[in-house]
Amino acid sequence: MEIFSAGRFIKTGKELRVMNPYNGSLVNTTYLAGEKELEDAITAARSALLPMRELPSWKRYEVLMHIRNRLTEQREKFARMICAESGKPLRYALGETDRSIQTFTVAAEEAKRLPGEYLSLDWTKPGECKEGIVRYFPVGIIAGIAPFNFPLNLAVHKLAPAIAAGCPIILKPSSTTPLSTLMLAEIIHETGLPEGAVSILPMDRSTGNRLVTDPRIALLSFTGSPEVGWKMKAEAGKKKVVLELGGNAGVIVGKSADLSLALNKCLSGAFSYSGQVCIHTQRIFVQKELVYEFSYRFATMVNQIRSGDPALPETEFSSMIDEGNAIRVEQWVNEALTGGARLVCGGRRQGNWFAPTVLTGTHDDMRVCSQEVFGPVVTLEPFDSFSEAAARINNTRFGLQAGVFTNDLSEMDEAFANLEVGGVIINDVPTFRVDHMPYGGIKDSGLGREGVKYAMMDMLEPRILVKGRR
Amino acid sequence: MEIFSAGRFIKTGKELRVMNPYNGSLVNTTYLAGEKELEDAITAARSALLPMRELPSWKRYEVLMHIRNRLTEQREKFARMICAESGKPLRYALGETDRSIQTFTVAAEEAKRLPGEYLSLDWTKPGECKEGIVRYFPVGIIAGIAPFNFPLNLAVHKLAPAIAAGCPIILKPSSTTPLSTLMLAEIIHETGLPEGAVSILPMDRSTGNRLVTDPRIALLSFTGSPEVGWKMKAEAGKKKVVLELGGNAGVIVGKSADLSLALNKCLSGAFSYSGQVCIHTQRIFVQKELVYEFSYRFATMVNQIRSGDPALPETEFSSMIDEGNAIRVEQWVNEALTGGARLVCGGRRQGNWFAPTVLTGTHDDMRVCSQEVFGPVVTLEPFDSFSEAAARINNTRFGLQAGVFTNDLSEMDEAFANLEVGGVIINDVPTFRVDHMPYGGIKDSGLGREGVKYAMMDMLEPRILVKGRR
Amino acid sequence: MEIFSAGRFIKTGKELRVMNPYNGSLVNTTYLAGEKELEDAITAARSALLPMRELPSWKRYEVLMHIRNRLTEQREKFARMICAESGKPLRYALGETDRSIQTFTVAAEEAKRLPGEYLSLDWTKPGECKEGIVRYFPVGIIAGIAPFNFPLNLAVHKLAPAIAAGCPIILKPSSTTPLSTLMLAEIIHETGLPEGAVSILPMDRSTGNRLVTDPRIALLSFTGSPEVGWKMKAEAGKKKVVLELGGNAGVIVGKSADLSLALNKCLSGAFSYSGQVCIHTQRIFVQKELVYEFSYRFATMVNQIRSGDPALPETEFSSMIDEGNAIRVEQWVNEALTGGARLVCGGRRQGNWFAPTVLTGTHDDMRVCSQEVFGPVVTLEPFDSFSEAAARINNTRFGLQAGVFTNDLSEMDEAFANLEVGGVIINDVPTFRVDHMPYGGIKDSGLGREGVKYAMMDMLEPRILVKGRR
Amino acid sequence: MEIFSAGRFIKTGKELRVMNPYNGSLVNTTYLAGEKELEDAITAARSALLPMRELPSWKRYEVLMHIRNRLTEQREKFARMICAESGKPLRYALGETDRSIQTFTVAAEEAKRLPGEYLSLDWTKPGECKEGIVRYFPVGIIAGIAPFNFPLNLAVHKLAPAIAAGCPIILKPSSTTPLSTLMLAEIIHETGLPEGAVSILPMDRSTGNRLVTDPRIALLSFTGSPEVGWKMKAEAGKKKVVLELGGNAGVIVGKSADLSLALNKCLSGAFSYSGQVCIHTQRIFVQKELVYEFSYRFATMVNQIRSGDPALPETEFSSMIDEGNAIRVEQWVNEALTGGARLVCGGRRQGNWFAPTVLTGTHDDMRVCSQEVFGPVVTLEPFDSFSEAAARINNTRFGLQAGVFTNDLSEMDEAFANLEVGGVIINDVPTFRVDHMPYGGIKDSGLGREGVKYAMMDMLEPRILVKGRR
Repeated sequence: MEIFSAGRFIKTGKELRVMNPYNGSLVNTTYLAGEKELEDAITAARSALLPMRELPSWKRYEVLMHIRNRLTEQREKFARMICAESGKPLRYALGETDRSIQTFTVAAEEAKRLPGEYLSLDWTKPGECKEGIVRYFPVGIIAGIAPFNFPLNLAVHKLAPAIAAGCPIILKPSSTTPLSTLMLAEIIHETGLPEGAVSILPMDRSTGNRLVTDPRIALLSFTGSPEVGWKMKAEAGKKKVVLELGGNAGVIVGKSADLSLALNKCLSGAFSYSGQVCIHTQRIFVQKELVYEFSYRFATMVNQIRSGDPALPETEFSSMIDEGNAIRVEQWVNEALTGGARLVCGGRRQGNWFAPTVLTGTHDDMRVCSQEVFGPVVTLEPFDSFSEAAARINNTRFGLQAGVFTNDLSEMDEAFANLEVGGVIINDVPTFRVDHMPYGGIKDSGLGREGVKYAMMDMLEPRILVKGRR
Repeated sequence: MEIFSAGRFIKTGKELRVMNPYNGSLVNTTYLAGEKELEDAITAARSALLPMRELPSWKRYEVLMHIRNRLTEQREKFARMICAESGKPLRYALGETDRSIQTFTVAAEEAKRLPGEYLSLDWTKPGECKEGIVRYFPVGIIAGIAPFNFPLNLAVHKLAPAIAAGCPIILKPSSTTPLSTLMLAEIIHETGLPEGAVSILPMDRSTGNRLVTDPRIALLSFTGSPEVGWKMKAEAGKKKVVLELGGNAGVIVGKSADLSLALNKCLSGAFSYSGQVCIHTQRIFVQKELVYEFSYRFATMVNQIRSGDPALPETEFSSMIDEGNAIRVEQWVNEALTGGARLVCGGRRQGNWFAPTVLTGTHDDMRVCSQEVFGPVVTLEPFDSFSEAAARINNTRFGLQAGVFTNDLSEMDEAFANLEVGGVIINDVPTFRVDHMPYGGIKDSGLGREGVKYAMMDMLEPRILVKGRR
Repeated sequence: MEIFSAGRFIKTGKELRVMNPYNGSLVNTTYLAGEKELEDAITAARSALLPMRELPSWKRYEVLMHIRNRLTEQREKFARMICAESGKPLRYALGETDRSIQTFTVAAEEAKRLPGEYLSLDWTKPGECKEGIVRYFPVGIIAGIAPFNFPLNLAVHKLAPAIAAGCPIILKPSSTTPLSTLMLAEIIHETGLPEGAVSILPMDRSTGNRLVTDPRIALLSFTGSPEVGWKMKAEAGKKKVVLELGGNAGVIVGKSADLSLALNKCLSGAFSYSGQVCIHTQRIFVQKELVYEFSYRFATMVNQIRSGDPALPETEFSSMIDEGNAIRVEQWVNEALTGGARLVCGGRRQGNWFAPTVLTGTHDDMRVCSQEVFGPVVTLEPFDSFSEAAARINNTRFGLQAGVFTNDLSEMDEAFANLEVGGVIINDVPTFRVDHMPYGGIKDSGLGREGVKYAMMDMLEPRILVKGRR
Repeated sequence: MEIFSAGRFIKTGKELRVMNPYNGSLVNTTYLAGEKELEDAITAARSALLPMRELPSWKRYEVLMHIRNRLTEQREKFARMICAESGKPLRYALGETDRSIQTFTVAAEEAKRLPGEYLSLDWTKPGECKEGIVRYFPVGIIAGIAPFNFPLNLAVHKLAPAIAAGCPIILKPSSTTPLSTLMLAEIIHETGLPEGAVSILPMDRSTGNRLVTDPRIALLSFTGSPEVGWKMKAEAGKKKVVLELGGNAGVIVGKSADLSLALNKCLSGAFSYSGQVCIHTQRIFVQKELVYEFSYRFATMVNQIRSGDPALPETEFSSMIDEGNAIRVEQWVNEALTGGARLVCGGRRQGNWFAPTVLTGTHDDMRVCSQEVFGPVVTLEPFDSFSEAAARINNTRFGLQAGVFTNDLSEMDEAFANLEVGGVIINDVPTFRVDHMPYGGIKDSGLGREGVKYAMMDMLEPRILVKGRR
């Protein structure tokens, strides 16, 4: 597949072979952009600044709805590509495609609803007879860097808001999983957006780093690991930076919880796509009264997860993205066991496959607790009081989302007031996300929010018109 | 005291003697406006339309903050006047004055925050290059009709938003309790508002009814009884009508409730100002498990209410506004007893004093349940399931507010979704109100909302400017 | 065609023959609903209250987008029906269909954006630790009454917001032009909305009047003539009333105007659909310096209007809805001429066809100026100063929209501040409307606003949840 | 005067002598905080995080209104201190004090209006029955760095929003002008805010730089020079950064302008406080037709500016902050003259006094055009077409505000659409600012917006609560 540079599909000198993580077969061959291709894309993006800004909202809507409609038609094809390049079980790949459809839908609608404000300015005598109108203008060229784990939808969370906001965008997909976004490029190409409005360029890290440092880029929107993200912020110069990083999300199962609901949600939160999810449910805290029942039933359910070929519709669990990550997870689990943790189930590795694993008896400073495990591992610990559980949730450098299963109003209020996260999810796992909600972390988990409208706000600059009036 | 017609204090031919409901003494003498005075006020209000509309927001703020500051200085004096003319215990009269201070404060702030909108209009091709700006203009002359039970603050809920919105207003206070608003007129007079901006005119009903029918009035804002209110709507011609009427507000005490909290709140909700409150707690439903304890403790507390001279700081309970109403309440209670209800406590009348009364064993169609009792009477009934209690709350033609004591998240959600009222108050009585919240009823309890900003919205008309843009 | 009562297509005993106004041929036969059919529709609507309220927003979106998509597919068919039943030239009928598509699109989007508010309530000590959440609930059953002049889109402006807001609706189309809405009923029927959610019932006036008086209807939304509308308000009982009435809209052509633009816009504003438009451009005021050139060029353009069979794509002008109206217009024109006005062009009647007519030398109290002419008549008068022109615009009991052609910032500000209308349209005629903008009149031109979101607001009731928080 | 560290007034080992720039006299002696004092302030600020977050809004309002009221009482005293420490003419120092009063007023009001959102989440099936509530929580400790030129109000633009948002703040005033903020500290001390809520610490640059690098600070808000500001962004680590930097603001005087208005505004925009203002009017572009008249009248007016002792009420112009800056300005002017510019008036220097200077015949790349002159120098150049003038305004690396004098609607629209600035001021100079409007620059002029509510938004983090609902 050719890569998409400023409205044209091109080859480069550097081939990139994309392999299926499950069976090691070649999915397709594509290309890495080099400095020249990137420079061309930036140059074209600069030429697209004015036509993109001047696109009336009905055209932005039409463009985004066209993409949405075509994506809907090719839903299965996209899901199969996601499945092939990332090893994500088909059922989840279909869900990801549906979410991308929705992300485009919301962006189409929000393109017509760019914020604007009317302000009276006569609050003091010097402002008498003056009024203000605030409109929001595109900030400039966006650089988006997307990860492998939701190869389509996390790229779409940068592409769709950029188009809606009227900003040209250069997107670097993960080199591991660039193919579904390149398929998307074909649809984008049909829309007649200005050349240079969108480029989708797989790159090696050093080329990609020019997106961080180039002063012609106005905003860098990065989704990926905390270490890389925070380093980028330091190197970004004058540009704005949005960081959607990871965490070690926790969930509290209180004694008033609906236990069956909690079990089902925790199972998918912990193990869907082998835990390679930013808001993966990594830590489960269960109130003492319920902990034996929860643990027993949970272990039973884990053992029934259907692992296998991700391309089969019944498969719920499959390989990790690569063996390196599986080995890292294995090391972290072993380190925890050595440190006194106990294995409830799982723990085995086979190549890049790592079994759904539940640990207990862990300490907050073990890496399976304190770091982002990004693998199919969850800890399960009892607690006495709700406040104690909340303190455990907070005892980390991360703060993305947290879940709380409860029917107790006071506990809900306490959780919302005190959990140091971007989102508190009542009666669901921290892994819950719908695409129009404000999403993002605090502490080391990130900077800024995505969620279409929220992502668009970062891509826009306010400008006030102050004028007299009668 | 003279009445306030279009910036001047005047006498008329019809004296009005205002009596203290507690001891029958004369509080002060004032005047009823006749047709001529009303006509003068309307004429002056018309002349004030333009200068009021053109008042910059900093002047509206200064005017309203001046009133607020002077009211704060004279807090005790106002409370004593409320107490004298209405028989309201001093502690509650002080609370009412504090609320009026707050109502003016919020109006001062909202005067600077009149809504305004910016709209893109290019959602379709015919709107390309067009944009819209919506500003809100004063609707015209307001007629406000206020009741006796909060003689100051319910008048202020019409006066303050009108000034903030830039509308001239003619206020008719209750003929029973016009004096505290006339005291307020003296403060308003200091502000240098345009003549005709504010008139405060006690009137007999037939004169007052011209406020309903006169086509020069743009909005009628009425607080009072349902019967009168709905009749006014039919006679109002082309003008807008806001109705803040009463109800028979109920409260649910569920089994997860904090019982002490519920008891204390229900006590004041049921008996403060002898229940002469629009959101008087008239019906208490207690979950079966708690009903004996609740009833026993509640009866004990009722018996300890300190009744006496409203002018004494320790007094919690005093006379009703007049003997006619006390007799009416007595009849309704007796009718209930005849129909099978049982007296938990109270039930006695002495002149215009009616004892704090608790009934049980009532039916939904007894007048103490189905009508607005507007007296110190509350029913107390057990219930089995939360849904049953909610159905009882709804089984009435009224829908103002409802209270729910619970710590159960599902019950809160069910209450919010299903109770047919303007406000659902969790862990407090329906009698709860702060002055900036949207307040008003559905079903027969009214039309529209007050709460400063919400009242202002009804006093303003949107006007859109559609213009081209580059 | 059968009529649509609560999810079923039915016949009744009263046939209604719909005739083509242009050639008098029968378009189709349908039925008038009687008392029984209306009663059935109301009963079914009551049953639909709960399921409609509980429809999640994604289902409302799907329903409305389905209608939108099917309408898009059948665009030409709908336009031909509008053309046939109303005599509207096809080009405008296509435009009306496009607008209906847009109205449904916007409603689909707004269904997901029902307003909701979060309020802190701790502005004073009594509210400490309390917070408020305001959600908006469907108000109940809507009655919509639509006129003949935009048989599809003005009905859609009631239907689409009602579905989006979750309210059952009973729509009475004009008996003259019920067929396009009945065609729409077939599409609505495909969506699987609850039975009783939508009924479309042609009725005679006396049966239709039950929609005004029946207490089970929560909101009456009427588009039609001022006389009928204001009478309905008086008879409406406790229900809310929205009135979209007419006017005698004026336009100012100032000396800085782009004259060609002004001429083109005035031509279509004055004569499209023979002026049978609520915001028909009825009065043109041209600054003295330009008046001869404007008049000469305008008369020339009027004489080139292509009149003829509305079903032909090139036709710009055709018959009026019926001969009665044409005779009325003729009388008004003759009365003006008798009173001293001069005919610039037009003035002839032939059956129900009335020539595009321009009058000058009129006075503000002639019926062609002061009343809603609802026919192809426009007055053209010179003015000296902008303020004089603005005063002429305001010198009427109506206040719907006004147009101003100018490049002068002060004139724009003066127009926005002082023109007593719901919308001031800069550099376009008052006839400008896009379907998501707030639209409606002040003074005798109406009460309330339409424009999807604005119409929805009237169909919703706020309910506040007050709760403690930590 | 002692410095204010975490609720206590303290001395340190390093004395700081503050001199009157006009006459070189000692105004007062204060202290520089060292590492220890800063560490104490940070520690105390951490302890204040929770109590500040939990302060109910009525207390925040009371605290801020107390400061406002006390500042109003001591208005003249504060203005005299600003005058003494900064050399700002008294009339402008009084204006600055009034603006600080207003900044606190607005902050008091906004403290009650912290944003909050209610979101329906059921836009797709996976979100069915879920809803979201977004509340905004204090981001953590704020570090504020304020400049010398508005020693009080630009500090207040950090202090007041921080208190309103519930964030502890450590403010570093300019070492040249720390005294008025230390006077303010005495008022803040009266309010009973938690210890550690506010510290006001003059520091040398290296100590102050710890505010940039310390990871315990959540947000750095800097007002000052572009070079320093952008360097700080690179060193700020994970914290958020707001930069309010300078520019070389331009104004366009078009041929439809009100010339007298333009002349008066340009005079004060160019020379008030010797141009030491971020939005100093540095470049005037006059349409050719008007340029001779404008130049002649402007030069005449400049020659009548009353220069002298800033403490005298009639003085309009006085010394610059120090001789170093005056010498720099002199060099830039001379460089321009050498490069071909011509002196219209001014150009002389005497110590730290530099005459009001008008240059013409400049080029865009001269430092008086391209850099921030921050002195009493303005360029005056003719232009042919509006587009040319707009291009000149944009031909710079800065983009703070721009002024446009015009009565032409198209020019206003063109200016708003195309001028690359944070604010376009119609019929006033770019120097216009009221304290509640969004204020800030794009390009090299800054990052983020101030204006109380806008500053508060940066000091708050959104947190969403996702919950089920019925």
